[in-house]
Amino acid sequence: MATLIAPDHADPVADAEALRKACQGWGTDEKAIISIIGHRNAAQRKLIKEAYQQLYDEDLVKRFEKELSGDLEKAVYRWMLDPMDREAVMANVAIKKGDYRVIVELSCISSPEELLALRRAYQARYKHSLEEDVASHTTGDIRRLLVLLVSAYRFEGDATDPRLAETEADVLQHAVKDKAYNNDEIVRILTTRSKAQLVATFYRYRDVHGTSITKNLSADHENEFVSVLVTAIRCIKSPKKYLERVVKDAIHKSRTDEDALTRVIVTRAERDLEEIKDLYYKRNSVALEHALAKETSGPYEAFLLTLLGNEGH
Amino acid sequence: MATLIAPDHADPVADAEALRKACQGWGTDEKAIISIIGHRNAAQRKLIKEAYQQLYDEDLVKRFEKELSGDLEKAVYRWMLDPMDREAVMANVAIKKGDYRVIVELSCISSPEELLALRRAYQARYKHSLEEDVASHTTGDIRRLLVLLVSAYRFEGDATDPRLAETEADVLQHAVKDKAYNNDEIVRILTTRSKAQLVATFYRYRDVHGTSITKNLSADHENEFVSVLVTAIRCIKSPKKYLERVVKDAIHKSRTDEDALTRVIVTRAERDLEEIKDLYYKRNSVALEHALAKETSGPYEAFLLTLLGNEGH
Repeated sequence: MATLIAPDHADPVADAEALRKACQGWGTDEKAIISIIGHRNAAQRKLIKEAYQQLYDEDLVKRFEKELSGDLEKAVYRWMLDPMDREAVMANVAIKKGDYRVIVELSCISSPEELLALRRAYQARYKHSLEEDVASHTTGDIRRLLVLLVSAYRFEGDATDPRLAETEADVLQHAVKDKAYNNDEIVRILTTRSKAQLVATFYRYRDVHGTSITKNLSADHENEFVSVLVTAIRCIKSPKKYLERVVKDAIHKSRTDEDALTRVIVTRAERDLEEIKDLYYKRNSVALEHALAKETSGPYEAFLLTLLGNEGH
Repeated sequence: MATLIAPDHADPVADAEALRKACQGWGTDEKAIISIIGHRNAAQRKLIKEAYQQLYDEDLVKRFEKELSGDLEKAVYRWMLDPMDREAVMANVAIKKGDYRVIVELSCISSPEELLALRRAYQARYKHSLEEDVASHTTGDIRRLLVLLVSAYRFEGDATDPRLAETEADVLQHAVKDKAYNNDEIVRILTTRSKAQLVATFYRYRDVHGTSITKNLSADHENEFVSVLVTAIRCIKSPKKYLERVVKDAIHKSRTDEDALTRVIVTRAERDLEEIKDLYYKRNSVALEHALAKETSGPYEAFLLTLLGNEGH
């Protein structure tokens, strides 16, 4: 479930006018901006951008970039992009920074059709294919794994083949035992099988070998390739649990990781942030809103809390 | 240009009735069948199949399989499938037979959107992804190359980057010179760059090194991996020339390769078979129809000639 609170009907022209007002004159009325865009869904935000362009012959997102700064600017910029375009931007930034975790998230949490839409959006924006840019910014085993993950168009059915799960759990177990992490078979299984089949294989692995594959792998967590593998497995196995962990790690770091916080909240607010919030509460015995309020401040805090469905903001 | 001669309007019910008649009683009127389906485009054939199913509660394609045999049966079966479904069937047969050439053709001649449509059709029919089946029926370097080729969603723009073409032509040349064919960089370049960019790179290669990359590679044509590489390069560089060569080889073999003939004629009759025919004539100084008529016979010959636009049939 989404956490975003948006009205059924919004008036894009009135919104554009109010946003213009908030951006004009001395200073910027960040509160007004947040109170509008923090309560509009993707379709509504798109209409606001169009209305703003027509009324003032100006790009609203560029105006926001001028008016805002720091973490709030980044969060608003991402929030205002169309969802698939946003993922394309996130992928491009991640490729340039060598942030493999985000590339894995984008390719393994998305449904097969969403990943395809991301690849299309990426091409429209960057005139390159996603896999092309991933491939030309990486090398070796990590390249091999990442290119296949972003190129995957997995079968989406729920049916699983228990015999196959059995065989491939064994293949994985042998490779992990031998520390042959970059084994062709691990890569093949992880990048081509359907998610439902992989989940069956991971369960089989744990049932037979007593420990989960992620736990076994995490023993070697300093190996960069292994950490990419573990991220991929977690994203495929239980994306919400994975995202809860990202949020928790971002908050608990000695220096809060605002990029990660923004990423999860902005991308999931219209999807499943409610469940991620619930998981957070169950695992940490404190509401995500409270934890966030402690670690962030000012209009950035207000914006995140608004997207989290906090009516007070 | 297509070679298929089809009327602007056809009556699917009348066609279904005529086909029923051709299939009933002693013997099968192959001539009647060919004269109908050999003059209907994909949309018209689809309507005939639907009308036939409704009228006689029977699958027309299955009926054809009972009535026909040998090369004609195979050709008609492929012809009657919806184009993307046909490619999915061809891919599946090729995977099972280990016929890498066909897998490369399907992935490298198709446009990026066509390849995507093929992947969708494959999943709908086989409940597996195409790359999954390719990966589980192959190993080693060939697997690596084929999986990436079938997973590619290349950028489709015409723009090329001359500097990149220069660098990557050098990378290719070094790898070829060192006989490092399975080099990561060759695979990366060939599987991720846009076709336009690759063509620029191949031209650059020839301009600087005096010989084309395919000629250089062909020196090692007994290496199976190299022959897959060469096929991929040819399909990307000039698909029509490549297909003309497939047809020529199929005809000139000591035992005519009907599968290859059927494949090219059935899949290209509604696309660009006219140009392939012209190329054939230019290169062999004999019309494709004449060459075909010498090597094939009976209703199979008649069917191929009909698809080639031979009005006499």
